[in-house]
Amino acid sequence: MAPNTVEKTPVTLLGLGAMGTALARTWLAAGHPLTVWNRTSARATALAAEGARVADTAADAVAANTLTVVCLLDDTSLEQVLAGTDLAGRDLVNLTTGTPAQARARAEWARERGARYLDGGIMAVPPMIGVPEAGGYVFYSGSRELFEAHRETLATPAGTTYVGEDAGHAALHDVALLSAMYGMFAGAAHAFALIRKEDIDPASLAPLLADWLVAMAPSVHQTADQLRSGDYTKGVVSSLAMQVAGAPTFLSTAEQQGVSPELLSPYFELMRRRLAEGSGEEDLTGVIDLLVR
Amino acid sequence: MAPNTVEKTPVTLLGLGAMGTALARTWLAAGHPLTVWNRTSARATALAAEGARVADTAADAVAANTLTVVCLLDDTSLEQVLAGTDLAGRDLVNLTTGTPAQARARAEWARERGARYLDGGIMAVPPMIGVPEAGGYVFYSGSRELFEAHRETLATPAGTTYVGEDAGHAALHDVALLSAMYGMFAGAAHAFALIRKEDIDPASLAPLLADWLVAMAPSVHQTADQLRSGDYTKGVVSSLAMQVAGAPTFLSTAEQQGVSPELLSPYFELMRRRLAEGSGEEDLTGVIDLLVR
Repeated sequence: MAPNTVEKTPVTLLGLGAMGTALARTWLAAGHPLTVWNRTSARATALAAEGARVADTAADAVAANTLTVVCLLDDTSLEQVLAGTDLAGRDLVNLTTGTPAQARARAEWARERGARYLDGGIMAVPPMIGVPEAGGYVFYSGSRELFEAHRETLATPAGTTYVGEDAGHAALHDVALLSAMYGMFAGAAHAFALIRKEDIDPASLAPLLADWLVAMAPSVHQTADQLRSGDYTKGVVSSLAMQVAGAPTFLSTAEQQGVSPELLSPYFELMRRRLAEGSGEEDLTGVIDLLVR
Repeated sequence: MAPNTVEKTPVTLLGLGAMGTALARTWLAAGHPLTVWNRTSARATALAAEGARVADTAADAVAANTLTVVCLLDDTSLEQVLAGTDLAGRDLVNLTTGTPAQARARAEWARERGARYLDGGIMAVPPMIGVPEAGGYVFYSGSRELFEAHRETLATPAGTTYVGEDAGHAALHDVALLSAMYGMFAGAAHAFALIRKEDIDPASLAPLLADWLVAMAPSVHQTADQLRSGDYTKGVVSSLAMQVAGAPTFLSTAEQQGVSPELLSPYFELMRRRLAEGSGEEDLTGVIDLLVR
């Protein structure tokens, strides 16, 4: 064992999928004593060769250290894996992907068992873990004491962004950002579909598309300002009425190019509904209110 | 008239909406002799005070100079405004928003009338015109000779990106980029909707959202590479199967937050369809093929 490991917080990690394995390697590389457990043992064996201690059961793994990080398939897996495990006095960090409601229920469940609980939402894919310049990070919410106590350990695999005591808020931030990303991917898919039958190289469209999306992304700051103030006409450059007037060009182009409008038309439909409410002078922000029931 | 105007190409501009007026001002400011015409005269009168010559009719305006730039409401307006106008020997640059098919038909129409034709798609809003650091630009396609002959004049209000002889390709690039932008806006709308009833400041979400979208936008390069090669498994980090497995978290979170999934579910539905075709090891690129009929 390297001399510096004596100073580093020992970590227990449950779950050695692609993400768990990536996390494990960064803690091992940073000199943290690491106890691992996985339902199937092949990945644990590989990590043993890199210095990890492999526990026979999840309960043994949790008993080994104060800090347990869980990175399993889903909340149901977590329920099964930790059933009957003594969590009293433990610090539980749950990086398993889930909904805000699952995170809140899990926080209460941990509290009942005498554990401090921190929920995490990972904004990275496994190759970005342990690579600070890749810009990946983890949203954390729940016990601030736990977060502060283990801040350095948690910061080893990826950046940390604490978003509040509500245990559901890390998952909510995670889902919000990834949902927005899927919207962007849907828009890009439509764009590539439009040129699919044309003599246009997708690789010549890509840089134009990337630059345009990067240039337009900061418009979310104006959206946020409008949501805060409740004044959706503030700073409008291209009004809802003008943009709805332009919609037929987008839908006709899709039709001409033989592209289904299914990824584009739901947003235009909401724009039209908002316009019908008499909000033509507004920005597109009012669409958000139509989404919330 | 300033001494330098004698060197600058005289320009005729038809259409003085917000965009036309912005274009007019940059040409006037750069010393181009400018002849303008607008259906209603108020905006023309304002520009006259800034040095523009106001023509009585569109035909007179076109007759005044070799280069005519048109920036009207739509293709129907252009048809009406230029009906009966002598275009023989003229250079017609059409910045009116339209579809690729409209641009191609208009190019043929101009050719029949003895004019060179260039179509343009403006990637900017009026406040970005004449402000190079704002990064706005115009896609041009059609006559390369016309583009080369007037390159400098066209570059005065905004950057220029020539995308080929096919007159429809400027509009196609324009629509493709703006469609992708609407997808991103739809995604961001969903993200803001998710936090609408929470104690989370939209202005604290906005920078996280903007940074995440900016970080993810370059993934379109990988999409383009996969489309070119036809191998959608190339460089996959998170497979279609994994992403479809994650979809319930997004849809459940929307439901928990009282947010309609209508902007998100069409993309997930296409992901599911593609997965059902046995493409689980692929990236999300196969969705594009499902859009094209």
